[in-house]
Amino acid sequence: MVSPHNADTPGSAARKPVAQIRYELLTLGDELLLGLTANGHLTFIGAQLGRRGVTLGRNVTITDEAEVIVAQFRESWARADVVITTGGLGPTCDDRTREAIAEVLGQKLVRDADIVQSIADRFTRLGRKMTDNNLKQADRFERGEVLPNGNGTAPGLWVEQDGKVLVMLPGPPNELQPMFLEQVVPRLAARGLLLEREAYVQLRTAGVGESMLETRLQPLFNPYGDALSVAFCAHQGAVDCRVSSPSGRLSYEQLEGIARECGALLGEDLMCYGHDTLAKTVSDLLRAQEKTLAVAETATGGLLANAFTGVHGACKFFAGGVVCYSNDAKMQLLDVPECLLAQHSAVSDECAVALATGAAETLSADYALAVTGFAGPCTGTTQHPVGTIFVALHAPHGVWSKKLNYPGPRETVKVRTVNAALDWLRRELLRAASGAETPARRSGVMQ
Amino acid sequence: MVSPHNADTPGSAARKPVAQIRYELLTLGDELLLGLTANGHLTFIGAQLGRRGVTLGRNVTITDEAEVIVAQFRESWARADVVITTGGLGPTCDDRTREAIAEVLGQKLVRDADIVQSIADRFTRLGRKMTDNNLKQADRFERGEVLPNGNGTAPGLWVEQDGKVLVMLPGPPNELQPMFLEQVVPRLAARGLLLEREAYVQLRTAGVGESMLETRLQPLFNPYGDALSVAFCAHQGAVDCRVSSPSGRLSYEQLEGIARECGALLGEDLMCYGHDTLAKTVSDLLRAQEKTLAVAETATGGLLANAFTGVHGACKFFAGGVVCYSNDAKMQLLDVPECLLAQHSAVSDECAVALATGAAETLSADYALAVTGFAGPCTGTTQHPVGTIFVALHAPHGVWSKKLNYPGPRETVKVRTVNAALDWLRRELLRAASGAETPARRSGVMQ
Repeated sequence: MVSPHNADTPGSAARKPVAQIRYELLTLGDELLLGLTANGHLTFIGAQLGRRGVTLGRNVTITDEAEVIVAQFRESWARADVVITTGGLGPTCDDRTREAIAEVLGQKLVRDADIVQSIADRFTRLGRKMTDNNLKQADRFERGEVLPNGNGTAPGLWVEQDGKVLVMLPGPPNELQPMFLEQVVPRLAARGLLLEREAYVQLRTAGVGESMLETRLQPLFNPYGDALSVAFCAHQGAVDCRVSSPSGRLSYEQLEGIARECGALLGEDLMCYGHDTLAKTVSDLLRAQEKTLAVAETATGGLLANAFTGVHGACKFFAGGVVCYSNDAKMQLLDVPECLLAQHSAVSDECAVALATGAAETLSADYALAVTGFAGPCTGTTQHPVGTIFVALHAPHGVWSKKLNYPGPRETVKVRTVNAALDWLRRELLRAASGAETPARRSGVMQ
Repeated sequence: MVSPHNADTPGSAARKPVAQIRYELLTLGDELLLGLTANGHLTFIGAQLGRRGVTLGRNVTITDEAEVIVAQFRESWARADVVITTGGLGPTCDDRTREAIAEVLGQKLVRDADIVQSIADRFTRLGRKMTDNNLKQADRFERGEVLPNGNGTAPGLWVEQDGKVLVMLPGPPNELQPMFLEQVVPRLAARGLLLEREAYVQLRTAGVGESMLETRLQPLFNPYGDALSVAFCAHQGAVDCRVSSPSGRLSYEQLEGIARECGALLGEDLMCYGHDTLAKTVSDLLRAQEKTLAVAETATGGLLANAFTGVHGACKFFAGGVVCYSNDAKMQLLDVPECLLAQHSAVSDECAVALATGAAETLSADYALAVTGFAGPCTGTTQHPVGTIFVALHAPHGVWSKKLNYPGPRETVKVRTVNAALDWLRRELLRAASGAETPARRSGVMQ
């Protein structure tokens, strides 16, 4: 593999402060523009660059027609210091990126025998037949490097030319992501094109609206004027606040100080500093207190359980979960009394409490969360329209339920409900840790 | 609300064939470029336009700095017939889109009393205090219309000017999506800027690789030359193939004929025509055969159950699911014998079979799927490394298990496992419907 960058380093880019280095991301493929595949590459690459002091300047998604790729790449290559492309490296006839970009760079494509071999090996290992169209994935730039792909057939490509860097990555996320973290980030950092450490301080909050959060925090930001940059980002039932100083007039330590002031003001509305999820925060509290958790859910259909099993080491504290749409399942698995279901219906405070208690007892867990309700779109009653959800929390010292109501589509209702349930447990665990008395009901969950 | 479009219709755009109308989507917000929020708007809007004959020409994601918005909007407005923007309409100080675009259009912003009232009403209804920064969401273009927002505070905006259409939508998906479907699509179609019906025919396949699929289908496509456009799109364990005729030389009926030929050739590898999910296809088969389903899962953590509960009317056939990470949960909830776990371990063919049988029996279901394995990243053994998954299928006439192995990150392993399990059940239900003998093991699941 050729390594031409001694002769042709991206010198002009590397002499600038990292925050001024212009990155552009070209995400290629009709399947993105037609909405058949989500553009997760923007999310992933944007987040990785953002943490290291670079705000991706622009992401352009275009069709995989050769002339469109040529025109857009020419424009981006002229404007940016680093251009990253994703997709269009695969085996089928609509994968034309390599050829189009070679034209703009004035480079030849050569077939790489090592790549041919590794593609053939991969097919052999998986016991599948290699069709001929796979071979064009072995074409690389004559003056460029290959980024091996441990998880798929098409390798990535790296070119340093015209004082700039081009990184071409394969489209499948399970191939792109390890390649980016293991091969691309270290190369970019080594050339001074990324910071080594995080560039901003983030507070994550739960249970507070975005405008209310800004109103509460603004007085703390005012003294810093335009030395401080503040950005808010609302998720479903959670809002992040990032403080940074793009001008560099405030040090990282000063930013941490500002974030700590915010945290003190927010109290238990602060979920964490940094990037942890609500499920991770709750898991850490459970593990620190050596408590276990069970869940029972109808409307959230498995998402509440899944929030925990996505957490590293979940088997240590997650006793299990039950998805019990039917009344039979509620009775069979969690001992919910038939008369309770008949009297109060499955969508009720009483049923939520019975589900939480049943889950805690059946699975011998210290805490249990239960969700029952109408996530839509197919059910609902006059008394409890779609979006009506009951959440119950079983703790060692009692069990409570509360009624929530979320408008919007089913997926939104589900995510907001999971977040509301997790946030309730989080607040409960914080109080347990502090030894506080627990009131039977509280209003921490944002409606 | 002002309705200026009689004087200023998008005449030049509407006279073109729909496929030639140039759409650009500007997705605004540092949170997208920093990867803090996924760009679901591209997926959603791209899919909606694509189905109606428009391939979104370009999606550009830029920062929410005013000068960047001005420059990019000026460029897109000059190039496109329809420009759609998302985000930047909210209440906080980093929401600057309205002002930037008014500058390019040469329009004034006026505060709309009706919008002020509806925002105030919304806060009252939710029992929350309206802070003053919410008021700027009531600013609209002097010559433009308002798209009411039933699910949030910031309304959308619609402008027809310079023979073009501008649509500005709020960022939260649960606000944007109904607004787009209910208000924007009908307006665009009424002006001849979208087709009334679907523009391509899609086959969804499961269990076949992308390059193998192309190799199998290519002979059917060859006779049509460049009159036929074919695109493949690989998901996790599923590949879509879309056939269309952008030149219009093939009629929709001819495209349907080609798709039917492909379907006949693919046999049970064809999952469906159109846009149904694997879970929806399986659900339709279960409902048609009046059978019920239960699931038990470890490594997929609730995602297998969630695939079904997202399907309309799932309560009709989905008996329930159990997420049983711990051995206690397997024994307590599903009667898996302790000696089986001791002899074979929880990650084994035997345990998968016991989980499926236990789920079917406990929940009185006709079919059951079970998943046990190591999704990573924290466990795994020498014998069964991370990515080793056992899936079992319990049917009225027997129970089988198979071992799968997926490389890649946890989320990929989980999604591929769910898809493989669903595909196995799908093939089994197809055979049951056709009265075929069921072999104890088959190789339909793509590794």
